[in-house]
Amino acid sequence: MAKPNLLIVGAGGVGQVTANKAVQFRDDFGTITLAARNRDKLEKIAADIQARWGGANDEPLLSVRAVNARDPGEMTGLIRDLDAKIVLNVASSYCNATILDACLETGASYLDTALAEDEFIENIDPPWYSYVEWPRRPKFAEKKVNAFLGMGFDPGVVNIFCAYVRKHLLDEIDAIDIIDVNAGSHGRYFATNFDADINLREIKEDVITWEEGAWKTIPRHSQWMDVTLPQVGTHRVYSMGHDELQSLAVNFPDTPRITFWMGFGEHYLNVFNVLDSLGLTSSVPVEVDGVKVAPNRLVKALLPDPASLAEGYTGKICIGVDVRGRKDGKEKRFFIWSNCDHEANFREVGSQSISYSTGIPVITAARLIADGIWNPQTMVHVEELDPDPFLAAMPQVGIDWQVEELPLDGSWPYPEEA
Amino acid sequence: MAKPNLLIVGAGGVGQVTANKAVQFRDDFGTITLAARNRDKLEKIAADIQARWGGANDEPLLSVRAVNARDPGEMTGLIRDLDAKIVLNVASSYCNATILDACLETGASYLDTALAEDEFIENIDPPWYSYVEWPRRPKFAEKKVNAFLGMGFDPGVVNIFCAYVRKHLLDEIDAIDIIDVNAGSHGRYFATNFDADINLREIKEDVITWEEGAWKTIPRHSQWMDVTLPQVGTHRVYSMGHDELQSLAVNFPDTPRITFWMGFGEHYLNVFNVLDSLGLTSSVPVEVDGVKVAPNRLVKALLPDPASLAEGYTGKICIGVDVRGRKDGKEKRFFIWSNCDHEANFREVGSQSISYSTGIPVITAARLIADGIWNPQTMVHVEELDPDPFLAAMPQVGIDWQVEELPLDGSWPYPEEA
Repeated sequence: MAKPNLLIVGAGGVGQVTANKAVQFRDDFGTITLAARNRDKLEKIAADIQARWGGANDEPLLSVRAVNARDPGEMTGLIRDLDAKIVLNVASSYCNATILDACLETGASYLDTALAEDEFIENIDPPWYSYVEWPRRPKFAEKKVNAFLGMGFDPGVVNIFCAYVRKHLLDEIDAIDIIDVNAGSHGRYFATNFDADINLREIKEDVITWEEGAWKTIPRHSQWMDVTLPQVGTHRVYSMGHDELQSLAVNFPDTPRITFWMGFGEHYLNVFNVLDSLGLTSSVPVEVDGVKVAPNRLVKALLPDPASLAEGYTGKICIGVDVRGRKDGKEKRFFIWSNCDHEANFREVGSQSISYSTGIPVITAARLIADGIWNPQTMVHVEELDPDPFLAAMPQVGIDWQVEELPLDGSWPYPEEA
Repeated sequence: MAKPNLLIVGAGGVGQVTANKAVQFRDDFGTITLAARNRDKLEKIAADIQARWGGANDEPLLSVRAVNARDPGEMTGLIRDLDAKIVLNVASSYCNATILDACLETGASYLDTALAEDEFIENIDPPWYSYVEWPRRPKFAEKKVNAFLGMGFDPGVVNIFCAYVRKHLLDEIDAIDIIDVNAGSHGRYFATNFDADINLREIKEDVITWEEGAWKTIPRHSQWMDVTLPQVGTHRVYSMGHDELQSLAVNFPDTPRITFWMGFGEHYLNVFNVLDSLGLTSSVPVEVDGVKVAPNRLVKALLPDPASLAEGYTGKICIGVDVRGRKDGKEKRFFIWSNCDHEANFREVGSQSISYSTGIPVITAARLIADGIWNPQTMVHVEELDPDPFLAAMPQVGIDWQVEELPLDGSWPYPEEA
């Protein structure tokens, strides 16, 4: 069987990691193409990859193509032109609908790392997948086309961690706490680790969480706890709405509570609160001296490019799932997690860990798709699949993971200082 | 002698107070005209004044004229057209140069409340008056035209307070501390009490102060003290560069130290620091989605209009001068000050005290000019004039003042709570 041609859409930090790793594992794929709107970014990534992995080899390791991923015709044309069989959408999540439709049209397998967003709509009702993704599911099933939704780290690997615990460790799951801590330091006054649009929005919105088997909305930053995680120490984490709750609540119907927690420092929240209180996180354009400008776009223009943070970024991240439930009638608590190190990731692929931890799962999944191991022939959330092949493959691609049984009293047996 | 026609330029908060007070004291003037760029603002102020002071009288109390005050031809034409003899410049200080030149051209007396600024130039070298104002002084002298610079409260009344202390209370002045505290509350998350452009800039710039008989530059917010002032209680005030230092240093050449202090709350400084650290106080345009926008202009567009703060503003302000020196060889310390009450000022003229305390001195001075009491026939800073007529007249127009001898140990004999 011919190896499938791979198309990666998006030239941000995740696109850079994904392209690097695709080239590193290029034996699994046919041609490899990186496409995005900004040709300068594409060529910069391609040149970096050629220098990093090309050796004395002058033959280009990947091709680049400029594309407007929000134009359905351009996307479909590009997939057909390349005869791409696997499309990895690591572009802005404003592009999801057109890329999904282009895959449905062409039969290429689709994968993304975040759910579709509309830049002018905030605080949508749950479940968030019911607007763009799920209405298209019957068509993917009918045409037997693969679509893997939310296959970064969180969402993505954390969903697979939940599937692993359900398969191997617990008979019943009572509570899932997904915890994401970035203990790294980029040395800037303030920066977002990924697209400022999306990042500020997820902090800005009301928190939609799953409690007592139902959706519950609470004010942002109103619920927090202190956790002590492996290699990063003690951090305050805040309950936040996040993609994975929107599918886990459906795929773990007997689990009454599923919560996502993210670590924020006081300084980060202070800056965010000032921006938000002044209306500077709004996507609604205002008139300034005769021109219309969306405040959040100006803020984005002033903030550092997330990719630029990578050089000199120090420290580690820890993302994991704290799961409580019962095995053979006995109460149990497990923590299952990964760490990444900003400096090590930068040395390897020129990116910081937030991008790295998203791109590694993408290529791990792409390899399983290329090998035919992942082939549901419909649209799926990744917790619906067998977790074992993925978790066996991910360490080879670049991120190890661990699982440990923890005390039932909620304490953490790790050092408080990183 | 015919009463002089009055032209007020500027329809912000100070323009509103100035126009109200001009109408209240209209017996001193011929025609009264309010001119600015924004016709809506002009008509709103005119309608408010007519309702407030017109009684059953249908005859308009003042006229309004749309003008671009940064256009020399328009300004000169307007003054000629109205046969204005006194021009009160309470517009943005970006307009000073054209209005000065139009007065010089037409012979009308000129008055302003703040020195000229260029929106794209920050941190200019002292003395700040040496760029736009002082180079024009010989021409004003030659043509025997009046120009009164910096005749609001600070600069303005505080300069006159210094002249009063020199004339009546001290033989030698060793130190002048000008202190400005707004203990009012407008109930908004964050707002500037006057033009956001100018306000954020004066907080943003390095602090230029007068010490040991020379200009000294220190980082902003780096020097502070706690003071307890009449009717407003204890507040932290920060050393800041301010217009009046630039002329007092010249006109009080034997005074080794002249410092300006302004009160800021922690919250205000925090918001300012976030905005400034992110580049949002910059006047240099950046490109956002294909259009050019100055960040400080977007922030201004999002902040409340200073005039809109007036309704519901509570609390008081205190602006005064703490002067140390010697009388008959004996060390002495005097505090000379005024208070204003936001609510009382709003009831009277629909404005908050920051605008009120600037507009009252403007009309007090305009009355002295109309009466021929102030007629230097050249360009002056107001501390060069006899302080007595002004200080006798100001309480009639709306603001009382007091002077008190204070302990030499630097303590304040006023209640700590407002």
